[in-house]
This record gives sequence, C-alpha cells and structure tokens, in this order.
Amino acid sequence: MKITIKLSGHILFPAMDTLPQIKDYATVIRELVKKGDHVSVVVGGGAPARYYIQLARREGADEATCDHIGITIANLNAKIFSQALGDVACPFVPMDFDELEKAKVSGKVIVMGGLQPGQSTNAVACILAEKMRSELLINTTTVDGVYSSDPKRDQDARRLETVTVGELSKILASMGVKAGEYALLDPVALRIIQRSRITTKIIDGRDPLNILRACTGEKIGTTIIS
Amino acid sequence: MKITIKLSGHILFPAMDTLPQIKDYATVIRELVKKGDHVSVVVGGGAPARYYIQLARREGADEATCDHIGITIANLNAKIFSQALGDVACPFVPMDFDELEKAKVSGKVIVMGGLQPGQSTNAVACILAEKMRSELLINTTTVDGVYSSDPKRDQDARRLETVTVGELSKILASMGVKAGEYALLDPVALRIIQRSRITTKIIDGRDPLNILRACTGEKIGTTIIS
Amino acid sequence: MKITIKLSGHILFPAMDTLPQIKDYATVIRELVKKGDHVSVVVGGGAPARYYIQLARREGADEATCDHIGITIANLNAKIFSQALGDVACPFVPMDFDELEKAKVSGKVIVMGGLQPGQSTNAVACILAEKMRSELLINTTTVDGVYSSDPKRDQDARRLETVTVGELSKILASMGVKAGEYALLDPVALRIIQRSRITTKIIDGRDPLNILRACTGEKIGTTIIS
Amino acid sequence: MKITIKLSGHILFPAMDTLPQIKDYATVIRELVKKGDHVSVVVGGGAPARYYIQLARREGADEATCDHIGITIANLNAKIFSQALGDVACPFVPMDFDELEKAKVSGKVIVMGGLQPGQSTNAVACILAEKMRSELLINTTTVDGVYSSDPKRDQDARRLETVTVGELSKILASMGVKAGEYALLDPVALRIIQRSRITTKIIDGRDPLNILRACTGEKIGTTIIS
Amino acid sequence: MKITIKLSGHILFPAMDTLPQIKDYATVIRELVKKGDHVSVVVGGGAPARYYIQLARREGADEATCDHIGITIANLNAKIFSQALGDVACPFVPMDFDELEKAKVSGKVIVMGGLQPGQSTNAVACILAEKMRSELLINTTTVDGVYSSDPKRDQDARRLETVTVGELSKILASMGVKAGEYALLDPVALRIIQRSRITTKIIDGRDPLNILRACTGEKIGTTIIS
Amino acid sequence: MKITIKLSGHILFPAMDTLPQIKDYATVIRELVKKGDHVSVVVGGGAPARYYIQLARREGADEATCDHIGITIANLNAKIFSQALGDVACPFVPMDFDELEKAKVSGKVIVMGGLQPGQSTNAVACILAEKMRSELLINTTTVDGVYSSDPKRDQDARRLETVTVGELSKILASMGVKAGEYALLDPVALRIIQRSRITTKIIDGRDPLNILRACTGEKIGTTIIS
Repeated sequence: MKITIKLSGHILFPAMDTLPQIKDYATVIRELVKKGDHVSVVVGGGAPARYYIQLARREGADEATCDHIGITIANLNAKIFSQALGDVACPFVPMDFDELEKAKVSGKVIVMGGLQPGQSTNAVACILAEKMRSELLINTTTVDGVYSSDPKRDQDARRLETVTVGELSKILASMGVKAGEYALLDPVALRIIQRSRITTKIIDGRDPLNILRACTGEKIGTTIIS
Repeated sequence: MKITIKLSGHILFPAMDTLPQIKDYATVIRELVKKGDHVSVVVGGGAPARYYIQLARREGADEATCDHIGITIANLNAKIFSQALGDVACPFVPMDFDELEKAKVSGKVIVMGGLQPGQSTNAVACILAEKMRSELLINTTTVDGVYSSDPKRDQDARRLETVTVGELSKILASMGVKAGEYALLDPVALRIIQRSRITTKIIDGRDPLNILRACTGEKIGTTIIS
Repeated sequence: MKITIKLSGHILFPAMDTLPQIKDYATVIRELVKKGDHVSVVVGGGAPARYYIQLARREGADEATCDHIGITIANLNAKIFSQALGDVACPFVPMDFDELEKAKVSGKVIVMGGLQPGQSTNAVACILAEKMRSELLINTTTVDGVYSSDPKRDQDARRLETVTVGELSKILASMGVKAGEYALLDPVALRIIQRSRITTKIIDGRDPLNILRACTGEKIGTTIIS
Repeated sequence: MKITIKLSGHILFPAMDTLPQIKDYATVIRELVKKGDHVSVVVGGGAPARYYIQLARREGADEATCDHIGITIANLNAKIFSQALGDVACPFVPMDFDELEKAKVSGKVIVMGGLQPGQSTNAVACILAEKMRSELLINTTTVDGVYSSDPKRDQDARRLETVTVGELSKILASMGVKAGEYALLDPVALRIIQRSRITTKIIDGRDPLNILRACTGEKIGTTIIS
Repeated sequence: MKITIKLSGHILFPAMDTLPQIKDYATVIRELVKKGDHVSVVVGGGAPARYYIQLARREGADEATCDHIGITIANLNAKIFSQALGDVACPFVPMDFDELEKAKVSGKVIVMGGLQPGQSTNAVACILAEKMRSELLINTTTVDGVYSSDPKRDQDARRLETVTVGELSKILASMGVKAGEYALLDPVALRIIQRSRITTKIIDGRDPLNILRACTGEKIGTTIIS
Repeated sequence: MKITIKLSGHILFPAMDTLPQIKDYATVIRELVKKGDHVSVVVGGGAPARYYIQLARREGADEATCDHIGITIANLNAKIFSQALGDVACPFVPMDFDELEKAKVSGKVIVMGGLQPGQSTNAVACILAEKMRSELLINTTTVDGVYSSDPKRDQDARRLETVTVGELSKILASMGVKAGEYALLDPVALRIIQRSRITTKIIDGRDPLNILRACTGEKIGTTIIS
C-alpha cells in the first residue's frame, strides 16, 4: 500500500533541553517498508522551529521569512529522521517540487520537511500524498482523534470513528477555530484530501506503534472520508 | 508607499483564441513607480493555466502536479508582464523564496507567478506583500468588492466599504463557500493578511485605472482591515 | 535498440482551441519500451509556444527571450507527455545538460523540450540522441519524407528513400531555404547527425503508428545516411 | 552605445605551453566602459578547450559531452577574463539564460563563455547581443574581414567593406563550406544577426586596438548588414 | 576599510534554553557601515549546531553529514543575524562560492555561515576575507588574545600583542594541540592568512564593543602578522 | 569492500603538452567494481589546474578565486575520468555535498573533483570516504610511502609500513612542513581520517596496478592507522 505519514514536529522534537527520541518512529517506518508498503514521510518543525521563529521575529524578520526559517528547520529534522531510517531512505531531502520528482527516481522512502512560506507541514504531507498517489495519509497528533465537539468544554463530546471533510470543517468552525488556524488540519490540507480522495487517519502519534496499527487497518483514531 | 498588486489571471489572460491586452496594466504600474511607489506584482495563470491543467489531468497527472503545471504558466505570464514593464522590472521572475531574496537586490519591480502546489496565487501575493513589507495589497477581481451577502440571491446585499478579516470569513462561510474554495481570498491569504496587518483592497480589476484609484486612496472596492 | 524520437509540436499541440490528442503517441512509446527498446523523446512547442512568443514579441521582448519563452512551453509539453507515458517515464523533465546527466540515472524514458535560445527542438533531439548514443533518430513531420525538389512546384519531384547529409543540404539550398530557416532539419541538426553518424528517419508523424513502422525497419519516409 | 564583443578563444588562448596575454584586451574593454559604452563579452575556448575535447573524445565521450566540456573551458576562460577586467565586470559568469537575466541586475560588463552543446560561442555572442539589445556586435577573427572569394585560391579575391547576410551565406556556400562548419559565423549566428538586425563587424582581433577602432566607427574589417 | 568579522557561534548562540542576545553585535556592524567601512560577516553554529550534530551522530549519521548539518545551522544563524542587521545586509545568505559572487552584486554586508564539510567557520571567514580583499580579519573568541603558553598551566604565560603565523603555529603545537583541533584558528585558516597576508586580530568577543575597538586600531587582543 | 581512491592530479594530468594516459587507471577501477568492491574516486587538478591558477593570479584574482578555478579543473578532470570509466560511473560529477547525496542514488562509481576554496582534493577524498562509509582510503602519490625522516637528507630514513595519525603529524612537523602545506596529507585530511577511523594507505600511484595491490591487502606503501 502507498502510505504518507506526517510525523508531528511537536511529538518528535518536543523540547530543546534534551535530545529527542526518534528511533522508535524510524523502526516503525522500516517495518512498514519490510512489509512491502511504499512509504513517504513529512516531519514537522517542533520546538527548534519555534525557537528560531521566535528569535527571527524578535530581530525584525517579516512573517514570510519566519515561515521560511521554520521550513529550514523542518527540512533539517527530515534530514535527521532520514539518517535514523538508514538505507531505506532516499539519500537527500527534497526541498521543492522539482527535487521531489528527482527523489522519486530513488524508489526509496522520501522524507520531507516544508516547502514554501504560508504552507503548513500538514499541507506538505497532503501534497506529498498526492504526488506519491498514496492511498492512505496518516496524521500524527497529540490527541486520539477528532471529537464531535470540544472535549474540554463539552462532557458529551465523543470521538468520531469516521468523519467527512464537510463535517470536519463544520466541527472545526463550531469550535471557533479561526480561518487558517486549525491545529489539526488546515483548510489547504482539507481541500487536497477532498480533491484527491485520500483516506486520512488522525491518530495519537505519541505512541509510535499507533502508526503501525493505523496502517494495518486497526480501528484507531478518526478516519476522514472524502 | 510599498504596494503589492495581484493581477488576476482571469482578467489578464482571459482566453486562448486572442492575444491578451496587458499594456494598460503595465502602464499603470509604471505610473506608480514614477510617482515613487515601491511596487511588486503577482500575475495569475488564467486561461492558459486552465488549458494545461485540464490537459494534464486528462493524461493522468496527480493534482499536485496539475498545480505545479499551473504555476509554470503563472510564472510565464509573470515573465510576459515583466517584458511589458520594460526597464522598471527586475530582469528575472523569482520562482522560489530564495530567488525572491535575490530579486530584492535589483531594487526594481518584482513580478512573480506561483510558488508551490497547494498554494493559490492570491496566497503568493500575500507572502510577497509580507516579504516586501508592503503597506497595501490590491487584489483585482471581476467584482467591485465584497458584499454583505450573495448579491445574486439577496436583493438587500450591499457592497461593504470596509470589512474585518473575521467578518469576511463569516460572510464567506454564510455563502456556503467550502474550505479552500473561496474564490476571492483563500484562508491562507486571510491568515497572512491578519498576521501581518496588511491593508488589503478588493477591487474590480477589469478597468486598469481602478488600480491607480485604489493606490491614491480613492474610495473604491472593499478594504479589508486586519 | 536505442532510439530518440522528435515529436513535432505542430502535430501534438496543433491549436489552442481544443485539447490535443497525445494518448496514441504515448501508447506507441510504451510499446517500444515493452519491446525492449531504449527510447528518449523530445517534444516541440507547437501552437502554445507560438501564442506566447507572439505575445512576448508584441510586449517588446527581445528575440532571445522569445526563444526562451518558447523553450519553457516545449518543456511544459514534455512534462505533459511524460504524464501520459506514466511509469515508464523519468519523473522529471531535464532542462539543461547537467539535469540530462542526472536523468540518465533513472534508466527510464527521458522526455525533453528545449535547452537554450538559438537552438531548435530538432537540434535538441540530435543532442539527446548523441548523449543517449542512440542508433536511430526519428523526426516526425507533416510531410512523408524528403523530396528531390519542391513537390509544390516541380511535378517530377519524387520522395527519396535515402539521402546523404550532403545531398540533403544541397536540396534544401536549391529550394531557396535560407540559412537557419530549414523547416525540416536545421544546419545544427545536420552537423550533429553527420558528426555522430546517427541514422535519421524523416517520417510523416501525423499517424502515430508510423513511428512504430519506422522503428521496426519498415520502409517509410526518408532515411538520412551520414 | 551597446556593444557585444566576441573574443576569439584561438586568439586569447592560443596554446598550452605559455600563459596567454589577455591584459591588452581587458584594457580595451575598460576603455570602452570609461567612454560610456555598455559592453558585454563572450570568450571562446581556444587551445585548452581543444585539449580537453580531444582527451574526452579519446576516452569515449559522446560528441554532446565533448561540446559540454568545451563549454566548461570557455566559461573558465570567461572567468579569467572577468578577473582581468576587475571591478567593471559582473562578479559571476552567467552559465545559462536564467543566470544571464540575474547578471543584468549588476549593471556591469557581463562576460560569458558557452551555453549548451550544439551551439558555437559565436552563436552565444549573438544571443547575448540580442538579450542586451546591442546595436553593434564585434567578432574578432584571425583574418581582416570577409573576402569576395577564397583569397588563398583566387587572386582577384578582395575584402568586402560591407556584405548582407544573404550575400555572406552565398559566399560561404561557394567556398564549399559545409553546413554547420562555417569558421567565421555559423548559420545560427547568421540567422540571429538577421532576425534582430544587429550590425556586425568581422575584424582582425590579433591587434586588440582593432576592437577600439571598430567601436569608434573607423573603417576596418567587414560590416555585415542585416 | 575592508573588514571581515567572524562572530563566534559560541558567543552569539551560547545555549538552547534562552533566546540569544545579538542586537548589540548588529548595532556594532551597522556603526562600522555608517563610518564607511566595507564589512562582511561569518557567523558560527554555536549551541544549536552542537544540538543537531549530537542528534545526527546518535542516529548514525557519518561525520561528513554531521558537518553538513552544522553548516545548515550556521547558515540559519547567519540568516537570523542578517535580519538583525536590516537594510544594510545583503538580502540572502550565500551558501556556496558561486552565490558569494552573486552576493557581491548587492554591495551590502554579506553574512555567511559555512560552506562544505571538513571546513570550520573560521576557515570560511578567511576565504570570505580573501574574496572581499579585506585588509582586516577580526576573529572573536572567549579569550582576550593569544598567550605565549597555556595560561592555565604556566604562571609566566603572557598575552602577545603581535605574533607571526609561524610563531602561532609553534605555540599551538607546544600546547599539544592536535592537528585540526586548534580551537583558535585551524591550519587551513592559518594558511589562508599567510598566503593572502590578511592582518588578523584575535579578540575577546564577549563584549561587542571590542569589535569596534579592534577596527579603530585600539590595542586589543593579539594581532597576527603574516 | 567500500573503497575511496584519491587519484593524484600530478600523476594523471602531469603536463599540458601531451594528452594524459588515464585508461589504465580506469581499467583498475572497473576491475575492482567487477570484484564487487564499492568504489568512489576523487581526481586532482594536476598541470591544467596549475596553468589556470597561475593565469588567474597573474590577472589579479584573489587566492580564494584561484582555488575555485583549480576546483573547476579538478571537476573537469573527474568528468573526463568518469567518461573513461564508462557505464560503471555515475553519469554526473557531484560538485557539492547536496549533489553527492543525489549521486548516491545511482549506486555507481562516484567520481568527484573539488568542493570549495580552502580545501585540498585530499580533504575532499576524506569527506567522500566518510560519506560513502569507506573502510579503505587509498591516496596515490609520487613516493612509495611515508618515511621516518626526510630521505633526501637522512640516510637512515626508512619507509614505515604503518604509522598512526599522531606519529605522522610529528614526522611532518619535524620535516619543517609548515601548517597547511603538507604535500602528502593536509591537517584537515588527517583530522577526518582520525575522527572516522578510516584505514588509509599512502602508495606510489605512478603504477596503476599498485592500487589493485593495495586493495587486495598486499603490503605496499604506508598504512595510516587511526
């Protein structure tokens, strides 16, 4: 199966004071490859990106440049993760769409970070899924799926097993999420999922084994149906 | 004043059977430059982009690649427009953020098309406005501004002179515009306008002189206040 | 066998008002690949290139820039054609000689457009044939071969089965073709065919099956012997 | 005046056993700049290019790769010459058309070598002249101009003060010069001179002062009229 | 005066838990520019580079890749510093020698990080000094100069006002500094200082004003004479 | 076995007046490949590099630019050598670290020249050895190994079969070799050999068969133990 996996920068690179633990995530990806899956990965920026963006902003950088700096760190995180993958990974991290096409020649696990300012790494994961014609997109988060309403405020909130893109948009809107600030999946990501009918699973990525579970069809998290 | 102008591909390149009339738009830009404004321009893909995207899709291209092909045409349109501008234009069309930084060295009018898949040329205009620290962003459309409700359905719909980003989001949502399909301004664009507090004017771009009017402070179209 | 095929832009992209039919050409290339041939392809600019060049010239572009714009379109056509080829095609269109060397790593069908101003896509096909060490170069045109004299003026004109580069030069000169304006094959192309002794067939490319016929040795068109 | 000058590799880099004398040529260019002319320069490959091409061919390189190797040397010669020019030269040698557009930003003397296989440095000089909109193209050779017939065979051969592109083509053809082997100016160069109506002077470049003479309108060499 | 300044990564980016204070260093550079000096800057990798290198190494990266990762961070630090410089800085950070030549076109303060694996940012500063033809190279460290012997072990150690490259090599060797591990200046840096006779000052960079003092000829730190 | 081989430019390209004999070296590399070794190669600049550097320096180039020009020639020599290798070679010469990662995708013999100013091709060979995780690095020279002291001055000087990096540093220092001028292996190279524990053999490369001997474990030259 063709699978694209978004590894949350917040999970993989949570803080600056200790070195992150990414080995188990690499092990999971290698296992999928061994099983015959055709995997591609996007890694977010996490704490180091926040550190540099905060610094750049304080020194007077415009927001587009701040985005660009965050992308540089996401690409570096991708580089680190591809090292952890070892020989199954494409030896370079494609940094634009032309390089992505060149990376496809390798036939190996492509690991990417970001592309251009104004675009979240979630959106990049969707673009990568399109380009690789992935049937499954797994988005790792720090929650265990999408809820019918905000669980922090509403006792009756329940985790949804499946949700359509339309329903998800409404839920996010009802929670008062502002345009372009959806933590889970931004509107660009939703639009791409819709247009290319990519089955997308939102899972709790804090346990790396959840990725394996989601790929083998175990009922976990929330599945977005397009 | 620092101004970024989004020239609609639909207006400048409306059809494939006749050569487009872009001279008057170039004249307006040159006039602004002569007045001392620091102008940058984004040109959309228009009919040629639709032609190639339709063709690519029919030949089996994935949607991300279709986007990329549309971007190539938008960049080509930008190249054509920079020729029409002549000596006041930066001699090359920056195709990514790194090249944009190099283009700034020229001190001339930077003309861009698109950047990466998943991103509208409206979003690119916002990113360019951020990078150039523009105080004013002019978005040319085929309507004369933002309406309180859909004028095709609601007789009481009236054009708004000003609107906040929040109000605009609500209006678009109430019109049933789906996530990522806002014709006027997509959510990425709205988020950037918000975060960098760029005064943005939605004007009818079919008359090139409206651009001049908007730049000189004439009351025209709708102004988005962040 | 190693074969380079020049697909005429005029044949593949004849007009702007309808989407071109390129599927049958892609089918022929895939068939050759299935048979074990090592194929590379150059696609011309056709009607969209003429559209943009005409536009650029009207807006004051110099002729070298016009050429460059035509090359951009030829590259885009090559991109579209590689999409139609699907998995047998190299995932990217090499845009200069360095990229061509990188494309060779893929071991797949390389599809190119143009290279640099001043160079016809016929010349690019010859350079590609040299680089790939092709034994056969097929040049598709809208005529069924080379004639002993201009068939429009001379009733006794007959199609030649074979012709040497020297004879062809004389025929073209006798027809009053000016330097650098040979529709069929320009002088650069002729020089390359000569220096690398590439067997070249001029065939009527309006029927895609003629390409197959020429590759399997059927007597068709005119063969240039170096 | 806008002037493009082709400096012959054979004249500037005549042999491998002694270091070439290029200072006087640099002095001439600097003098033109001081006078207010807008100068651009193309330098050929000369003896070092022949050395490396001969070597590459012996080691089995295809002819397109041999061309590419010759271009690398021409670019290196251009780099050396730009060092000799000092501060009046653009600090980098543009190696493709995109870089040429970036070099224009510098406003300084652009020095180029070659572009792509299949293209002589004479053709590159014509493309550069087009791009820079030069009114005058000076081509340095080891003869003092174009003759009515081959002076080695015909006692009545006389140097022509002016010649049209059409006449020049005929003269070259009558001398039995084969397609693509014109030492003086190849057909691509002739076509460009024609299409962009660039006044071109063929002069004896062995005396660097002849360049100054040609630029100041002194009657020297042969002028090609388009 | 032409001055190249190496800003120590250890000083500018000392730790990961707090945002660094780089404003005062930017102020000093801007002051030099205002005085008419032609300044270029190299910024080291500091704590973030160590963080990422340590991480890469733990994930199995080879040492050359670790170097490359450190260079990416040094380039990012340079980007941040150029933001702090504002308009006096070249808008992009040159990442290789070709880009450095393009950056020279800007005429602004060039800020660089690293170049290629195996090369310290000290060596990069020396190369930049050569390329910019700087008369003075200032190397900021956490000591107040070069000592006649190791001050930690030898009570009689005294700070040298001047030292030759040869003497410095001997002192470093006598301290048991191993090949390629000179903290102060590595052998590549020493060789470049020697070959291009660049006056080099080793100063305590913890006080940004020391940079101003060194530039105005105040007796501070140790001057290496070549 | 993974082996990196540094081919001396002085041996392969000894002079400008005759074409070099490199076939036998290519034969040796192909033989190693046939045996199953995973080989990568660095080629030095030799006489052509010295020619161009001397010329550049005379025309006023700074030393960093001179280095860069030497690197261009080393890359060209690498290109020539890869032609001699034929199909076992990666079709392009990686010119920076990013391209090196792309070249790894080919799985073929990577042939490199230089990287950036300030770095010897010996250092590049060490970096390549690190990147390819080579177990053996062979450095061809014009001497038959490392001597205990300078054999030209000391009758008792004897060739060492093995030497540690530390001992080698001391020997070189005792011979009065100045910082950064070690002909055999510069300090950067020594540091990399040390840090990555690459077994390195210094052999007389004038006989190409010595390379085969060194690879098959024959006692030849001097082995540096880290």
